[in-house]
Amino acid sequence: MATHKIAVIAGDGIGKEVVPAGIEVIEAAGRRFGIDFQWTAFDWSCERFAKTGEMMPKDGLDQLRPFDSIFLGAVGWPGVPDHVSLWGLLIPIRRGFDQYANVRPVRLFEGVQCPLAGRKPGEIDFYVVRENTEGEYSAAGGRMFEGTDREFVVQEAVFTRQGVDRILKYAFDMARTRQRKHVTSATKSNGIIHTMPFWDERFAAMKERYSDVTTDQFHIDILTAHFVRNPHWFDVVVGSNLFGDILSDLGPAVVGSIGIAPSGNINPERAHPSMFEPVHGSAPDIAGKGIANPIGQVWSGAMMLEHLGHKEAADAVVRAIAVVLAGGGPKTPDLGGNGGTRDLTRAIVEAV
Amino acid sequence: MATHKIAVIAGDGIGKEVVPAGIEVIEAAGRRFGIDFQWTAFDWSCERFAKTGEMMPKDGLDQLRPFDSIFLGAVGWPGVPDHVSLWGLLIPIRRGFDQYANVRPVRLFEGVQCPLAGRKPGEIDFYVVRENTEGEYSAAGGRMFEGTDREFVVQEAVFTRQGVDRILKYAFDMARTRQRKHVTSATKSNGIIHTMPFWDERFAAMKERYSDVTTDQFHIDILTAHFVRNPHWFDVVVGSNLFGDILSDLGPAVVGSIGIAPSGNINPERAHPSMFEPVHGSAPDIAGKGIANPIGQVWSGAMMLEHLGHKEAADAVVRAIAVVLAGGGPKTPDLGGNGGTRDLTRAIVEAV
Ligand SMILES: CC(C)[C@H](C(=O)O)[C@@H](O)C(=O)O
Ligand SMILES: CC(C)[C@H](C(=O)O)[C@@H](O)C(=O)O
Repeated sequence: MATHKIAVIAGDGIGKEVVPAGIEVIEAAGRRFGIDFQWTAFDWSCERFAKTGEMMPKDGLDQLRPFDSIFLGAVGWPGVPDHVSLWGLLIPIRRGFDQYANVRPVRLFEGVQCPLAGRKPGEIDFYVVRENTEGEYSAAGGRMFEGTDREFVVQEAVFTRQGVDRILKYAFDMARTRQRKHVTSATKSNGIIHTMPFWDERFAAMKERYSDVTTDQFHIDILTAHFVRNPHWFDVVVGSNLFGDILSDLGPAVVGSIGIAPSGNINPERAHPSMFEPVHGSAPDIAGKGIANPIGQVWSGAMMLEHLGHKEAADAVVRAIAVVLAGGGPKTPDLGGNGGTRDLTRAIVEAV
Repeated sequence: MATHKIAVIAGDGIGKEVVPAGIEVIEAAGRRFGIDFQWTAFDWSCERFAKTGEMMPKDGLDQLRPFDSIFLGAVGWPGVPDHVSLWGLLIPIRRGFDQYANVRPVRLFEGVQCPLAGRKPGEIDFYVVRENTEGEYSAAGGRMFEGTDREFVVQEAVFTRQGVDRILKYAFDMARTRQRKHVTSATKSNGIIHTMPFWDERFAAMKERYSDVTTDQFHIDILTAHFVRNPHWFDVVVGSNLFGDILSDLGPAVVGSIGIAPSGNINPERAHPSMFEPVHGSAPDIAGKGIANPIGQVWSGAMMLEHLGHKEAADAVVRAIAVVLAGGGPKTPDLGGNGGTRDLTRAIVEAV
């Protein structure tokens, strides 16, 4: 029986409610498929920051290093600025562990209200693959002439051949495992003239190595339009750190799943632990009420199972989510019901 | 009787079909409201490039300078790369004439198929105001270690206090003329740590000067999600060159108007001519067939009328577009009809 050591960072707000729910479901899948887990909790959070002045200890990454994966809830709380909560925890982990593939599924489930007219479950089912370590998110840049009329700021986006090639390779490899085997590249080479033509060049070169995968590419502006008008076109969509960030919020929004979407921050070489977290935040407005929807966390757990090599168990959890969403059982308020986190969790556990 | 001198650049493809349609409608509005136009055609285009090696002559900007406005169709043709057609014509005009406000209306019309479920005409009616001269679109940057494994590219986004303040001021001034008086700022200060916190700072400072205008701000990722889920929230949305570019394609897409959306490239100080152009491109696939939808060009003409000081005439043209879209008259194929450019144009002329 395989035993996986998982680091658990519940974080803030509803993170502390949905993480136990996620663990419960993954444990249930473990029992059914013979997988064993050992969960170790870390209290790293804005609460910890308020007490100690640090989101995580200085040797935080070293503490996480021995684990097989990191299961994260949500980080952030009113009063703690983003550059503290995110740049003090989330972003150092993503970068420190070279989790360069940020992966988010976009899938239209039965029972979830879709903002688009006339779309059917099954019709929309794709992945956004986002570069997660370089590009538009960089520390390079700064400000000159502060406080004067001549003031200006510069932000340097940096794209390396190594960084671009490996995320493109990841996207093509993923496409190969899927039925449609299609990769769409997000670009903006008509407006952004240094980085994006380079991205296109590398995409063209990578494509040569995957003759079994079909491709297309769109400028980011019209691509967001196609997400709304033609979401059924897509299979695997690959984009830079910023474009991927935008598309992986927009994608879940068009299928109505932004409250339940999961994400994986993956180090494909497995040189470091990968991290799995729901897309939603800590939701201070509903925290502590026991009504948070646990599905984003549970689905993130399913992605973790798959990453750990348990595809069958992962599929069983996603199927259980689909069954519960489609069925007449308990629903949390965001899904139009009046059940709580516990009711929904129990229903998913049973379906597993 | 006012006489306006207009430079006309029909450009390529369907540009050559919809520009005459636009002129016809604007002339009709002129007759009704006592406005006189003098139209001067320029053949600048990819076709010209093929013959002469230049999209426009070296002294192109000087030739345009004496005009009150520029009325542009569409630029671009297969075989001519974007960096030639766009950076050889469109972008030099936008920048050379300091047309720093790119303005695009987002409006749900009766009779236009909206991809969103359950939305009613009148419910969605806002403007995207995009910074049009600096930011993420810059010539600064470059490449190192070309052709090797160490290869990388850098793109510098540059935001100046002057550039940011004037576009924010434009957005707040526009909000003041509207009923809801609300400005939404597109940011990403949690991820892009030099330019976007600066943008937020300037936004906060500008807001102080407009106590009658309400505001909010969203990170670009979740903002695109709100365009789909809550498009009725918005009144004036202001964004950087790149964010504005994305939002001004996504906005028209969510109301189903991407084929008919107009845009103004405006120099608010009127030190230089402003330019008005539809959002759609030259559409090589339907060019020459006489079936292009002229509404984007006509609506751009209405924006030009407003810029020239003829608000009443502009409103009459937009009303005529609305009447024709809602009515049972001729429609082009993209609107689900089988009429041609001429039929639709005649219907709009009559409605004016
Ligand atoms: C063609 C391209 C350079 C342009 C832009 O990004 O500005 C277009 O998308 C637009 O919005 O007018
Ligand atoms: C919180 C923020 C820095 C983050 C990002 O932009 O990467 C978030 O939007 C996400 O997508 O995980």
